[in-house]
Amino acid sequence: MREAVQDAVNRVDQRRLWQRLMEMARIGAIPGNGVNRAAFSPEDIVARKLLLSWARARRFTVAMDAIGNLFIRRAGTDPHAAPVMTGSHMDSQPRGGRFDGVYGVLAGLEALEAIEQAGVRTRHPLELVAWSNEEGGRFPPCTMGSAVYTGAKSMGDFLEVKDNEGIALKDALARTLAATPEAERRELNGPAAAYIEAHIEQGPLLEREGKTIGVVTGIQGLCWFNVEIFGETAHAGTTPLGLRKDALREALAAIHALHALTRDASDTVRFTIGRLLIAPNSPNSVPSHVLFSVDVRHPDPETIARLSEAIEPTVRQAVARCSVKVTPTLHDDPCAFDPAVVECVEQAAQSLDLGHRRMPSGASHDAMYMARVCPTGMIFVPCEKGISHNEAENARPEDLAAGARVLTAALLELANR
Amino acid sequence: MREAVQDAVNRVDQRRLWQRLMEMARIGAIPGNGVNRAAFSPEDIVARKLLLSWARARRFTVAMDAIGNLFIRRAGTDPHAAPVMTGSHMDSQPRGGRFDGVYGVLAGLEALEAIEQAGVRTRHPLELVAWSNEEGGRFPPCTMGSAVYTGAKSMGDFLEVKDNEGIALKDALARTLAATPEAERRELNGPAAAYIEAHIEQGPLLEREGKTIGVVTGIQGLCWFNVEIFGETAHAGTTPLGLRKDALREALAAIHALHALTRDASDTVRFTIGRLLIAPNSPNSVPSHVLFSVDVRHPDPETIARLSEAIEPTVRQAVARCSVKVTPTLHDDPCAFDPAVVECVEQAAQSLDLGHRRMPSGASHDAMYMARVCPTGMIFVPCEKGISHNEAENARPEDLAAGARVLTAALLELANR
Repeated sequence: MREAVQDAVNRVDQRRLWQRLMEMARIGAIPGNGVNRAAFSPEDIVARKLLLSWARARRFTVAMDAIGNLFIRRAGTDPHAAPVMTGSHMDSQPRGGRFDGVYGVLAGLEALEAIEQAGVRTRHPLELVAWSNEEGGRFPPCTMGSAVYTGAKSMGDFLEVKDNEGIALKDALARTLAATPEAERRELNGPAAAYIEAHIEQGPLLEREGKTIGVVTGIQGLCWFNVEIFGETAHAGTTPLGLRKDALREALAAIHALHALTRDASDTVRFTIGRLLIAPNSPNSVPSHVLFSVDVRHPDPETIARLSEAIEPTVRQAVARCSVKVTPTLHDDPCAFDPAVVECVEQAAQSLDLGHRRMPSGASHDAMYMARVCPTGMIFVPCEKGISHNEAENARPEDLAAGARVLTAALLELANR
Repeated sequence: MREAVQDAVNRVDQRRLWQRLMEMARIGAIPGNGVNRAAFSPEDIVARKLLLSWARARRFTVAMDAIGNLFIRRAGTDPHAAPVMTGSHMDSQPRGGRFDGVYGVLAGLEALEAIEQAGVRTRHPLELVAWSNEEGGRFPPCTMGSAVYTGAKSMGDFLEVKDNEGIALKDALARTLAATPEAERRELNGPAAAYIEAHIEQGPLLEREGKTIGVVTGIQGLCWFNVEIFGETAHAGTTPLGLRKDALREALAAIHALHALTRDASDTVRFTIGRLLIAPNSPNSVPSHVLFSVDVRHPDPETIARLSEAIEPTVRQAVARCSVKVTPTLHDDPCAFDPAVVECVEQAAQSLDLGHRRMPSGASHDAMYMARVCPTGMIFVPCEKGISHNEAENARPEDLAAGARVLTAALLELANR
């Protein structure tokens, strides 16, 4: 490893990184060490302002685009070179943990600061991005900021999306944009020379094998749907069951059929119904409307395609008395990362003498969209028992710092190519 | 019919009654001619103040007890006689109609005003009551005001109940009590000589048979439960199904088993799951907690007892990986009304030459609790297609006025006994 790179890697400060993670964890803290920091919420705004304050203290330039993605930039020597990017997200699941997403943002900030402190110059600029609304827990679908940035989706696809309280995304977004005037407004989209995202594994493999670094080779495919069942409300005491159009009862029949469709002896298919809304939601009124989410994932593109096509007919066949609306909200084919970036991450882990392994990602990440527009890779670090999307999510300070060191080395390698 | 009674009955003003119903229907109006006027909501407060303003314009005395039941009283000639009471409720289902409950209150007010205008004196005082939180749609369980008034339940049973937004009943109640200082505070409980409640049928029988008046003989039995399933949230992309503790999946297995338990070829059992809450309610998080309501009704006390006892074991047997909590929230045995009051209502319908029939009530009403403390009866009027707990709920002005006339005659008969 070149001396300048080693100097920068040595400046990665485990204590500073951990303290910042814990400071972020107080924003939206919930019982059990968890975090509830929904996209475009007041807590999200506080986290954004804190990140910007750290970046500005280091005199990095800060900017924001129309979907609220935040960009923190350290200049390069070649004014024509596109930035080498890193980042992740700061929003969380409603009952999320302290590391999912925000670790990748703060590891990126740590890398930029370490490089700055070491005085290492790079040909390409280095750009850290905090993507908007990766989780999609409040405003589905997920990975919204990177989808818009990469042109895979347009802003207009999402502005009218409503949260469970009926608040439209466009209104929550407008409040978020207005809250950080310190970030200069920049255009949507932009060139990128490469992208590396650091993240906790959110699965049990690294911990089980005693490895520190996951060299991520790609991301499994995913499809999302909203299924709506429309029935008729009626009085629970007077209306015979034979005359009812009970939206919940029919929704349950549909879900039962979807369970049968996705049954898989190898336990490779991931099938989840995580969101379900029922109206009028009163004990003595027959439900008139149910909306539920469908999340299906698989590493094989043909399996994802087959299951995705079967969702709507399966629901329709199971529902007898109500009407049905099935809306696809997301479809991502499995993605393979750029071999050169994968190798660059692997080399960095190797030269830092860290135990590592190649592995696919079970979860979606913003890297999936970035892989469409530039050479992309990811770095995983272990998390306790593989638990994530849960208050109990945990990770060790030394593993988190190791991931930031690999990120620092890999960014410098890519930024001087 | 005595001349004084006939005079009072003639003063029942179909137009006034209809106009007041329509004025009430504007408070909490929702699209499709519906009403959303939850107990102890700002809309409930507006309705309460409007009712009190009408009562005070007629110089009736107005009072309120600690659970928010409103009492409107016309004095009798015997200072020692307990009041003959009538009434119903003004709260609605979240997607309720314009007549359920509020008709009984305004028919009662119409009766008191007609009697006042006719100058008919009664031995017993006449008391109109608007019961708090009959629907239980926001704060379960239902028929709360009459349960507390009759001593069947105590205030303390309900103060900590929370609505879907986490607001405690005690806080919403305190705001409601503070909003009507014009009603003098009175004690909980009180003597009653008799009680008659007018209500739309909420079922199809009267309309189908072309009858105007239902002479209600009693109310079927009912039991309510809250069922909670506790699992563990996890990441939808990384966590194999075999390792999940998915609270929704297990809740669906429990509901499936409850459907089997309550299956009934005669379609007499009423089984409803009307309320279901899921957490964290995010598409890519495995659900960690589900709460659903169970509402079971049947006219036969033994059937209700048998089903009620089977709910918890049925749920426990169906749930494999999660833990379970089953909380009974309401149990009402079938109730038979007082034969003398039933006959009094029947006589009134007869003497007014209105088509009538005896019938049981499929729905619960506050009359069920009043039947425990005094001779009680009910008057039903037809509603369109039997639709209720639905925005489309409808009734004809002439049928509503006919019900108020029967009520006027029956109240006068009972109040001079």
